[in-house]
Amino acid sequence: MADKAKIGVLGASGYTGAELLRLLIRHPRVEIVLLTAERRAGQHMRQVFPQFSPYALPKLVAVDSIDWKEAALDLAFCALPHATTQTVIKGLLAAAPNTKVVDLSADFRLDDTAAYAHWYGHEHQAPELQKEAVYALPEVYRQQIKSARLVANPGCYTTCAELPLIPLLREKAIDPDEIVVDAKSGMTGAGRAAKEEMLFSEVSEGFHAYGVGHHRHMAELDQEFSKAAGRKVIVSFTPHLLPMNRGIFSTIYVRGLKTPPDGLHAILSKVYAEEPFVHVLPFGEMPQTRHVRGSNMIFIGVTKDRVEGRAIICATLDNLTKGASGQAVQNMNLMLGFPETLGLEQVALFP
Amino acid sequence: MADKAKIGVLGASGYTGAELLRLLIRHPRVEIVLLTAERRAGQHMRQVFPQFSPYALPKLVAVDSIDWKEAALDLAFCALPHATTQTVIKGLLAAAPNTKVVDLSADFRLDDTAAYAHWYGHEHQAPELQKEAVYALPEVYRQQIKSARLVANPGCYTTCAELPLIPLLREKAIDPDEIVVDAKSGMTGAGRAAKEEMLFSEVSEGFHAYGVGHHRHMAELDQEFSKAAGRKVIVSFTPHLLPMNRGIFSTIYVRGLKTPPDGLHAILSKVYAEEPFVHVLPFGEMPQTRHVRGSNMIFIGVTKDRVEGRAIICATLDNLTKGASGQAVQNMNLMLGFPETLGLEQVALFP
Amino acid sequence: MADKAKIGVLGASGYTGAELLRLLIRHPRVEIVLLTAERRAGQHMRQVFPQFSPYALPKLVAVDSIDWKEAALDLAFCALPHATTQTVIKGLLAAAPNTKVVDLSADFRLDDTAAYAHWYGHEHQAPELQKEAVYALPEVYRQQIKSARLVANPGCYTTCAELPLIPLLREKAIDPDEIVVDAKSGMTGAGRAAKEEMLFSEVSEGFHAYGVGHHRHMAELDQEFSKAAGRKVIVSFTPHLLPMNRGIFSTIYVRGLKTPPDGLHAILSKVYAEEPFVHVLPFGEMPQTRHVRGSNMIFIGVTKDRVEGRAIICATLDNLTKGASGQAVQNMNLMLGFPETLGLEQVALFP
Amino acid sequence: MADKAKIGVLGASGYTGAELLRLLIRHPRVEIVLLTAERRAGQHMRQVFPQFSPYALPKLVAVDSIDWKEAALDLAFCALPHATTQTVIKGLLAAAPNTKVVDLSADFRLDDTAAYAHWYGHEHQAPELQKEAVYALPEVYRQQIKSARLVANPGCYTTCAELPLIPLLREKAIDPDEIVVDAKSGMTGAGRAAKEEMLFSEVSEGFHAYGVGHHRHMAELDQEFSKAAGRKVIVSFTPHLLPMNRGIFSTIYVRGLKTPPDGLHAILSKVYAEEPFVHVLPFGEMPQTRHVRGSNMIFIGVTKDRVEGRAIICATLDNLTKGASGQAVQNMNLMLGFPETLGLEQVALFP
Repeated sequence: MADKAKIGVLGASGYTGAELLRLLIRHPRVEIVLLTAERRAGQHMRQVFPQFSPYALPKLVAVDSIDWKEAALDLAFCALPHATTQTVIKGLLAAAPNTKVVDLSADFRLDDTAAYAHWYGHEHQAPELQKEAVYALPEVYRQQIKSARLVANPGCYTTCAELPLIPLLREKAIDPDEIVVDAKSGMTGAGRAAKEEMLFSEVSEGFHAYGVGHHRHMAELDQEFSKAAGRKVIVSFTPHLLPMNRGIFSTIYVRGLKTPPDGLHAILSKVYAEEPFVHVLPFGEMPQTRHVRGSNMIFIGVTKDRVEGRAIICATLDNLTKGASGQAVQNMNLMLGFPETLGLEQVALFP
Repeated sequence: MADKAKIGVLGASGYTGAELLRLLIRHPRVEIVLLTAERRAGQHMRQVFPQFSPYALPKLVAVDSIDWKEAALDLAFCALPHATTQTVIKGLLAAAPNTKVVDLSADFRLDDTAAYAHWYGHEHQAPELQKEAVYALPEVYRQQIKSARLVANPGCYTTCAELPLIPLLREKAIDPDEIVVDAKSGMTGAGRAAKEEMLFSEVSEGFHAYGVGHHRHMAELDQEFSKAAGRKVIVSFTPHLLPMNRGIFSTIYVRGLKTPPDGLHAILSKVYAEEPFVHVLPFGEMPQTRHVRGSNMIFIGVTKDRVEGRAIICATLDNLTKGASGQAVQNMNLMLGFPETLGLEQVALFP
Repeated sequence: MADKAKIGVLGASGYTGAELLRLLIRHPRVEIVLLTAERRAGQHMRQVFPQFSPYALPKLVAVDSIDWKEAALDLAFCALPHATTQTVIKGLLAAAPNTKVVDLSADFRLDDTAAYAHWYGHEHQAPELQKEAVYALPEVYRQQIKSARLVANPGCYTTCAELPLIPLLREKAIDPDEIVVDAKSGMTGAGRAAKEEMLFSEVSEGFHAYGVGHHRHMAELDQEFSKAAGRKVIVSFTPHLLPMNRGIFSTIYVRGLKTPPDGLHAILSKVYAEEPFVHVLPFGEMPQTRHVRGSNMIFIGVTKDRVEGRAIICATLDNLTKGASGQAVQNMNLMLGFPETLGLEQVALFP
Repeated sequence: MADKAKIGVLGASGYTGAELLRLLIRHPRVEIVLLTAERRAGQHMRQVFPQFSPYALPKLVAVDSIDWKEAALDLAFCALPHATTQTVIKGLLAAAPNTKVVDLSADFRLDDTAAYAHWYGHEHQAPELQKEAVYALPEVYRQQIKSARLVANPGCYTTCAELPLIPLLREKAIDPDEIVVDAKSGMTGAGRAAKEEMLFSEVSEGFHAYGVGHHRHMAELDQEFSKAAGRKVIVSFTPHLLPMNRGIFSTIYVRGLKTPPDGLHAILSKVYAEEPFVHVLPFGEMPQTRHVRGSNMIFIGVTKDRVEGRAIICATLDNLTKGASGQAVQNMNLMLGFPETLGLEQVALFP
């Protein structure tokens, strides 16, 4: 690899694609050599996202038109829709086995092909790659990510529940059968497809839940919580949509505590003491989405409930950054041997 | 009483005051004869809320300057800050014992003077009135309200949790020890006081929890849930602030079901079948705050959780209307013998 | 006509359709007997706009399936897309010549068929009806509207510029060649079609101009300003989109004054003294969109510029109410002989 | 000066202070050694702005407690309220004449002490410094800034009108007597003081003009436009407030063109061809505030009006970045001999 890694972004016309570009344009060790977007093929990024107008970037091409071997990418970010993804990555890795891949879709997050088929309604098209793929939550699987060729970037909701809960489940500090995660997301989490229910006038000045009782992110939570607890875990999880752009907020109710609430806080503080992107607030203080906007940070707060034996944990991150593209760049840094924080040092934009 | 009741609004410069005026100006059976506001005394309502500029309204006066006997109000709405309220109402009822009072503060909501002192940090100044006051949730206490002189209008958060849960607790259909209420409120619920944390730039594009583990509305929930269950109930309750003006949304996790989730739905549908302001959605459908904005409706949805034996209930209302001033007018209608829905027929404003 | 007029709303699934229903449901002299929506035919209004869930309304039907003669409507509101409109109304009036029509589209606003063809790119399909149609700005053309069968409801931008300027042009108080109208609109003015540029995440936290130098509303402004001035007038007009739902705001720069700025104010105050829906603020005070939200009011302010011989006029209205459906109901009231303000008395919803 | 310049931020608890920190924390050539905030003295920045919680920063101190000589700052940013500023800077420069100062207030922007007294209502307290101060619009006064000790950072509104208009006035391409600037600003431009009219519920979902006909920024525009035109210029300027956080948008009406509209575009394109922070869009394309959010860019668009001899220019920048703190860092870079773009390379945050 030369001084600068050759990077491609597949699916550059969506919000996670744009966020990848925002971060990569300023990253000192990468060169963006390839951008794809199906319906916008042939256009300049400035026509798709005018904020990139001042920057020189490759034109958008269709993903099918690419010769992966010739492209000789060091690493590809894949921000394509679910299902398309597995076919594209299969072809890419067959043609260019030395290219590394960070996939931002849900396609390679589940270890279990049966669980995949259950939640997504069809057989996986690349089961051998599903086996190879590493679930890429860096604070939990850093070593595996460093040596991986294909990683599955975690979901935004799941990152915001797993980072606060995995250490507690590993320590058996909470009852794994009694977890309730009430999650709220900004609208960019819903993507850029033109749908009536996502219009400004439908969304602003309002709030609602969706996918109540049956949301696909549950499979990912079950998997990681079960691994951490060492036995099967199933959580109550409700996602909601906030009338704002960026931010996930998880309000997590835990009980059956093996230690008082400040003991939970102590566990998290210790585990994350050296992590550059995880910030545990003083006991009793609660985070706000606005204070992580545009940064790669997750802020976590712990407090006691007035009901004996229960605690409440709140966590927040920017769904496009630590919840998607920032975490993807963090994974790239690990996979390419760069310092883990490179290109991710932005301070949050508030107000 | 003449054809039109003589009405006063104490505390007309806040948001609940403005909402009372919005409703009362169009109410065919009332005449607004008195408006108070301490710091704005001497001003016209148009200087405080320019939307009232086209309407003829009495000038604002200071509450201390009023001769209650001479004012001879048929009914006073009291939208004053907590604590001030009990002193003002005590004086009012002493001087004008035939005036009826709908109090929108928290001062008369708790039956138990000890609970009041615990949550509010001081002895109640009018304990005998606290005893007289009726907790005025019309769908639950309609008959008592009709004959009351002083009623305590319920809080916005509490209305949005009590209407969905009281029938289920009465029927013993859920485990009263396992209720989690995750509540979200629009900013008007925080009032009109000029505080840094309520500035537009602090609030927009962000979300956070507050009062986690210890919020005063808990006392009111405990009281009403305990009455409904016939034994002591204590709930986990977390309030959050939404970057929008109007709307409360409660996501309620219940378990220990004595009936399947659709049985909970059947109970609520039956209890509220004839209620003009309570709308139970078809089983599995969930409400949105925007569809009740500016109306006096509460919308309730029930669905099953994927975790066996659990259900999720979502409810929403406009915190200024059914959560405060609309419910206050509904109570006025009951107390003065008007049709209960008079002046409250507005359809929600969406978009 | 019976006690209640039989009313149809063609195009009930858009925002102006919903706003018509909001107003008509509470109107004491109408019965909604027909609702159309092409893609949603067969559905209930609650599936299209859940805020109507508590109300009994006719199911949505396709416009082509209607027998207009049998329907025997007293009046139809037509909130269909441009161009479709003229064909539908032509058919309707041919089959049911006694039905009155309030058209909310732009199809019948221009007197001049050549101007129409120029701005809309095709010949008008019902030129004889274009001749019959009355431009229905009630404060200007009240008498003509009362006896009309077909009226063209003015546009939202144009209403917000014509009401402040027509009296001044009629009085020759300003130079008609020097008018600049800088106009800003809430997003509901852009309709409910699912387009990428109207998604929440594209719109919130941002502002921009569109159609700069060439916007179709200009033709309507030219026509009415020319009529008022008694000679050809052409204005500079720039529309912008605001990150909010409801409200038009016009900042109007006028010069070449024949009277000082307070003279302009005096003219407007006098002309509109008795108008129920036009409110001229005291000289030097400026309106805000939020104070007319959901009401049928237009608020107008006049002040002097520091540049000698110039004045600045600001006007605001709710684009869905006085800018569309409220004004349409006002026109219906005139056409059916009801009191002009019936069903339009709502006070603005603020906050 | 060592490898890193010693920097102080006076007034770190406001929005421009926070924006300075956001940029300076990532700037490779500076060390933040001093932060002041009167009411928050003694606190940590994390208590004032929680987004800085992960960063080590000096505690806040009161400005009066500082020994400027001992502090030995290389450069101080002054983000203090108007009027306080001139006294503080006078004292600072008297005690530490080698410290350079970038002032973000309006105190040193006007050359003319009489104009200052007229617009601000009192005599200037440091008239000799007012003479020394350089008006620090880098694209216009780069050389003077490089050698200055004290610079006056331009206002946000004025930067957004001066950059598009100064080249046109210098070239005498437009009539200087006929300029209309209709300007709109996000709420952060109004600062962080707790005022009722700036509360979320007062601001969201609404739009209004303020200071119509008499706004202090006019003096700054007059000064710079007159210098550019070589004779006295006075403009019509109306500021408005947008329900969003960041962004200024100027809609500028010009006429009396000495060249067709595309000639204006050619002038701006040529003048700004090499400027890193000024981006002129292709002729006929218009900018949007959201595409510059958080960046130090100004985007400018030019198009023709349909009225012969007129053009419309739209310009946008982030009021906290290019409109305040970003431009201040740009000026610091010039004054300390750093590359002009250092620490300012962030790509805009959209969505």
